[in-house]
Amino acid sequence: MADAPAAVELLVCTTCRAGQPTDIEGPRPGALLEDALQAKDWPAHVTVKPVECLSNCDSGCSIVVRGGSQRWTYVYGNFTGADDVDLVHDGIVKYADTENGLVPWRERSTHFRKNCIARIPPLTIPE
Amino acid sequence: MADAPAAVELLVCTTCRAGQPTDIEGPRPGALLEDALQAKDWPAHVTVKPVECLSNCDSGCSIVVRGGSQRWTYVYGNFTGADDVDLVHDGIVKYADTENGLVPWRERSTHFRKNCIARIPPLTIPE
Repeated sequence: MADAPAAVELLVCTTCRAGQPTDIEGPRPGALLEDALQAKDWPAHVTVKPVECLSNCDSGCSIVVRGGSQRWTYVYGNFTGADDVDLVHDGIVKYADTENGLVPWRERSTHFRKNCIARIPPLTIPE
Repeated sequence: MADAPAAVELLVCTTCRAGQPTDIEGPRPGALLEDALQAKDWPAHVTVKPVECLSNCDSGCSIVVRGGSQRWTYVYGNFTGADDVDLVHDGIVKYADTENGLVPWRERSTHFRKNCIARIPPLTIPE
């Protein structure tokens, strides 16, 4: 039997404004996206966590996904808010299903292909 | 006596072109920056490592700095190549001197202030 998959964290920036002016009142798009993601059905090894500011403010809403010492970490941006909940869920479920975080290109949604802000290698850097 | 500081890794994208056309021959700006950084004098707990592609190609040359479970990870971009060796060295030495990776704003160079691509919280996410 295979080992249980390493835990995956989806970090959602709750301060992201997604380009809204700074004087708009009410919950921010990032916070609404995080609420919507918390309500989704996730694999048991995935946890959604709110964070304050990933310093990707020009390309928010932003998320980070990471998952133990063997997986690449990814920063994705340019989500519009809660409307993108299924798009994010789809991408993160695919990530969580990998051992190294590398989802095959053909399986990535157009948004994930075009809005990768950066990726960071696992602690053991691949050759 | 204080504990020894956690190890810091400076990851330098050696495939970065810094906006060069794709048909230019010879070593890439990212590889030249990495060479120049390897030749610098670093605190004992800092290691410079080459990596292939941080997926920040539109804003390269790019670096990532990370340093154990207590420090924030940062992605910085828009370096021009080996000319920026002292700029990068200065920023990373300051980072390595912190426990949590947060260099006070007034101590950051203009480049580091303006070219933070993203930051990722430590494994134990601060409140």
